[in-house]
Amino acid sequence: MAISRREFSKLGTFGIAASAFSALPLLGQANQKKIGYCVIGLGRIADHHMRGIAQGSTSSITGLVSGHRDKAERIAAQYGVPKSSIYSYEEMDRIRDNKAIDAVIVCLPNSMHVEYTVRSAKAGKHVLCEKPMAVTVAEAEEMIAACKAANVKLMIAYRLHYEPITQKTIKLIRDGAIGKVQAIDSANGFNIAQNEWRTDRKLAGGGPLMDVGIYSLNATRYLTGEEPAHFTAVASTPDQDGRFKGVEENLAWTMSFPSGAVASCSTTYGGNMGSYYRVFGSKGSLEVTPFNYENQRLQARYRTGPSGPFTTIDETNPERDPMHFVRQVDHFSGCILENRTPDTAGEEGLKDMQHIQSIYKAAGLTLG
Amino acid sequence: MAISRREFSKLGTFGIAASAFSALPLLGQANQKKIGYCVIGLGRIADHHMRGIAQGSTSSITGLVSGHRDKAERIAAQYGVPKSSIYSYEEMDRIRDNKAIDAVIVCLPNSMHVEYTVRSAKAGKHVLCEKPMAVTVAEAEEMIAACKAANVKLMIAYRLHYEPITQKTIKLIRDGAIGKVQAIDSANGFNIAQNEWRTDRKLAGGGPLMDVGIYSLNATRYLTGEEPAHFTAVASTPDQDGRFKGVEENLAWTMSFPSGAVASCSTTYGGNMGSYYRVFGSKGSLEVTPFNYENQRLQARYRTGPSGPFTTIDETNPERDPMHFVRQVDHFSGCILENRTPDTAGEEGLKDMQHIQSIYKAAGLTLG
Repeated sequence: MAISRREFSKLGTFGIAASAFSALPLLGQANQKKIGYCVIGLGRIADHHMRGIAQGSTSSITGLVSGHRDKAERIAAQYGVPKSSIYSYEEMDRIRDNKAIDAVIVCLPNSMHVEYTVRSAKAGKHVLCEKPMAVTVAEAEEMIAACKAANVKLMIAYRLHYEPITQKTIKLIRDGAIGKVQAIDSANGFNIAQNEWRTDRKLAGGGPLMDVGIYSLNATRYLTGEEPAHFTAVASTPDQDGRFKGVEENLAWTMSFPSGAVASCSTTYGGNMGSYYRVFGSKGSLEVTPFNYENQRLQARYRTGPSGPFTTIDETNPERDPMHFVRQVDHFSGCILENRTPDTAGEEGLKDMQHIQSIYKAAGLTLG
Repeated sequence: MAISRREFSKLGTFGIAASAFSALPLLGQANQKKIGYCVIGLGRIADHHMRGIAQGSTSSITGLVSGHRDKAERIAAQYGVPKSSIYSYEEMDRIRDNKAIDAVIVCLPNSMHVEYTVRSAKAGKHVLCEKPMAVTVAEAEEMIAACKAANVKLMIAYRLHYEPITQKTIKLIRDGAIGKVQAIDSANGFNIAQNEWRTDRKLAGGGPLMDVGIYSLNATRYLTGEEPAHFTAVASTPDQDGRFKGVEENLAWTMSFPSGAVASCSTTYGGNMGSYYRVFGSKGSLEVTPFNYENQRLQARYRTGPSGPFTTIDETNPERDPMHFVRQVDHFSGCILENRTPDTAGEEGLKDMQHIQSIYKAAGLTLG
């Protein structure tokens, strides 16, 4: 594996040319060992991960776990996975004996993350797990402990951490371009269909904060580089149309950070609010939108000096889906090959779970 | 006065042509009595009011109250106010005997609103008072009672209530265009200079919520047509640069409404966050920006029917400052001439003061 941490972290940082978006020339040189992934759960998010693995060159799909044999065989044929590497949920512990499988990707409903992460770790496989990490803080801690005990790596799939516009935005703020961060405003929400597992409390553990609001929460943390210290929240469920028997529909919350920055965020399953954050600093402000799978756009305006001219940035990541997933799996495969800790290790997911618990408590709700 | 309430309320409503922005043809016909205003306090906001009166045709400036005789004489000459109608703060009660003065406009720092509103009411003059109405709920109640006892009208200068894009937005929501309102996201803030009266607690009563955050608060109320029922808030003052000895720098808060809509808002004196609200409904969303004196822009996108096409709106009010003030003073003069209650009477200001008190309490701060 030729890519070093320093080289990788150069990608997409402030000042790098737009061509940084295109090639990933440092990754995936020929004749290198590819990391083999077993995909657990074959729903929509798994499709993104698999297309990302296929489009990249550091990783390959070497196993599937599914409750639907037909679907699994169709996908196995598509990605060149041997039929012998298709497992049911009951028999998945047998991945231990499959040398082609180095790691798993947990693409299951939230409440199943803990079980399949722990079983994968016990089978000796590294784990890339979807967000939210789990449905309780205790589960998140159990996942970290299990991976540590098994000496396997655990990474949470916070794909935006590996996205160039996001990385550029973080660097812009750290470099002081917009001055001291005073306030962050963020939202992420959509109009959910009937009978989604996301509104089944047993599977989801909570409402839109778990699924989409977590992007706003996580963004406030990577934007400030701080952990929120104080939380307030209000929740509501105005629509009594059968969709929200298990979880709340709307949630708005505030947080304050040790530096004094404050954040106000909202999330919903009841309307398409898009997804964005706006960061307001003493010298300027910026907005990034969306949190979706492609075309993140950064717009910034800040003053260079007390009465200097304004600098403006308007830059869009031209990459299309599944490039986020290529970058993300490349990072995890690099960590496995070079024995590094992922940038979004289990501890990153645990912090979000702790904060989600604080937000739920502030709203008078119970998590999990 | 030829304008009726029905005719007036037609202005700027949904469906009216863009030409509604230009002429105000119904207002200010020749030979009608103009309402004479005495402007109390000659700072920046007074300048907007005076230019609005001068540009409109329903009202005239017939008195000035100032502590700076030279400045007052200069302004009096500009607007054709007799020198005999210039008063110091000490002698302003004499406006009672000035028949050319029908009403006053209180353009003083927040904490002085109560005294000059009560004195003006006792002098038999109608009162148009800047926002925030006062620095405590008790003061707001005292102002309403004083105007009621004196049988004069009291209006709070919520100019956006009289602005066509704002009126169109409210109607769009009431007509159900974007469906059920789920969430509102709003911000308003700027980077305040040193030694502003707005950061002097004795004059301002509180921080940026009193001055600019109140626009977000008021907007959530006119957008939903409801009063917020539950409040959470966090405040902070990260900048210890001498500007914030008296009031907080940042405030983020949430509210929930009886319908189930939630709102998340933020305000600051520490950075230019612009001013906007975004409303997210079950069928679409909209944004209006800014809260400033001109060029309000509405962008909306909503689905017409369950799987129908999207309708988009992108419309900007081309009017420039001081048109907000023309529309506002025209409304109050119309109310005086026709003995109507202003759309933003004292009770409207009182409600905001009650909610501001709730937000301050939630943030652990004391108002006033």
